[in-house]
Amino acid sequence: MNNKTSPSHAVVIASGGLDSTTVAYWLVGQGSKVTLLSFDYGQRHRTELEYASRIAKHLQAPHEIVDLSGLGKLFTGSALTDPAVPVPDGHYTADNMRSTVVPNRNTIMLSIAVAAAVSASADAVAFGAHSGDHAIYPDCRREFFDQFEAVTRAGNEGFLANEFQLLAPFIGLTKADIVETGQALGVPFADTWSCYRGGEVHCGTCGTCTERIEAFSLAGVADPTVYVRPEVGA
Amino acid sequence: MNNKTSPSHAVVIASGGLDSTTVAYWLVGQGSKVTLLSFDYGQRHRTELEYASRIAKHLQAPHEIVDLSGLGKLFTGSALTDPAVPVPDGHYTADNMRSTVVPNRNTIMLSIAVAAAVSASADAVAFGAHSGDHAIYPDCRREFFDQFEAVTRAGNEGFLANEFQLLAPFIGLTKADIVETGQALGVPFADTWSCYRGGEVHCGTCGTCTERIEAFSLAGVADPTVYVRPEVGA
Repeated sequence: MNNKTSPSHAVVIASGGLDSTTVAYWLVGQGSKVTLLSFDYGQRHRTELEYASRIAKHLQAPHEIVDLSGLGKLFTGSALTDPAVPVPDGHYTADNMRSTVVPNRNTIMLSIAVAAAVSASADAVAFGAHSGDHAIYPDCRREFFDQFEAVTRAGNEGFLANEFQLLAPFIGLTKADIVETGQALGVPFADTWSCYRGGEVHCGTCGTCTERIEAFSLAGVADPTVYVRPEVGA
Repeated sequence: MNNKTSPSHAVVIASGGLDSTTVAYWLVGQGSKVTLLSFDYGQRHRTELEYASRIAKHLQAPHEIVDLSGLGKLFTGSALTDPAVPVPDGHYTADNMRSTVVPNRNTIMLSIAVAAAVSASADAVAFGAHSGDHAIYPDCRREFFDQFEAVTRAGNEGFLANEFQLLAPFIGLTKADIVETGQALGVPFADTWSCYRGGEVHCGTCGTCTERIEAFSLAGVADPTVYVRPEVGA
């Protein structure tokens, strides 16, 4: 999807993490206007919303936080929202990642982002999926985005810009590639949040922290993140 | 879509209106368990939520109301949510119906209904679209539902029942056909709500009231609805 025309105005689904933040910087670097859209779905790692706001300030971009906490009861059984389910440590496996899946989350967020795009006459919605979003997240695959773009065009004919694009520009990149890209674009990595545990600082041991640490290491970029155990990530 | 197998458990998007209520009765008549799911998106005709609850009680079915009022600001410019936009009277025209469109509303509601179906291990989501949902509502067309079913399967592979169906059983019927169907199924029409104005009783003049009155008349079924002007609908 990299070789389409740059959008004039993209609604970026902004989690406050590395990937979506780098997508926003990448779009701004191409001359696009961006609006950041975040979701409060009762996630344990709600800290990320504060980090998304910091990024919006850096970019001087509008930032909307959509309150979806009313959906919380639909999301029981996910470690991301249900305090009774522990967040797994270490590398993701098919088994322990299932517990971090919120049912149909990406479709819900993308649908609302499309509504925001219609309202704002924006011509794109952008999402920070990458190649490391394992097979267990079926709604992070290219086929899914292609189908969602098609259903969005069909469902909003006459309302949405004809040249509307659903962008997932990093879907072919690894997380290490994204760190490299972000480094070149001047992304303030210290103002991004990955940890699923949502403490004061990154735990350094959950699946997303493990991936974050590895991505910086593989990219050869200094990791500015503060972890619970200072030796981690150093 | 009528000739697929009956689902064992369907999440029915229940607006409290004629169409979705009749869908729920039709499914129950086929031996399916139903869960009614309604949405509070800050609509002017919020009365409909109370009517959806009445139907759930009649059917002794679970009823969840999802609070999407946090999305209200994305929906400005629609007569359904924005008090500054008047509800048009009389028959729908392409022009005045545009003002009753909430951007991407059906995709948003369907996405959340799919999440509810995953959580409840339900094998269907059902929606009350019919042939009279004019071309101006592009997300009420069969093509849209077919594409949405495909994207739902792709995005929830491994989580959703393999035999999952997105049902829009009345998409080939007129509203008069639905009144006839509902009459045969014993739908308590007096406990359904259509009016977009959301007063104490149906206004009898807005687009949905106009269609409701005509549907009863064409079906030759007595209309139990109370309208502001008692001679209307009689």
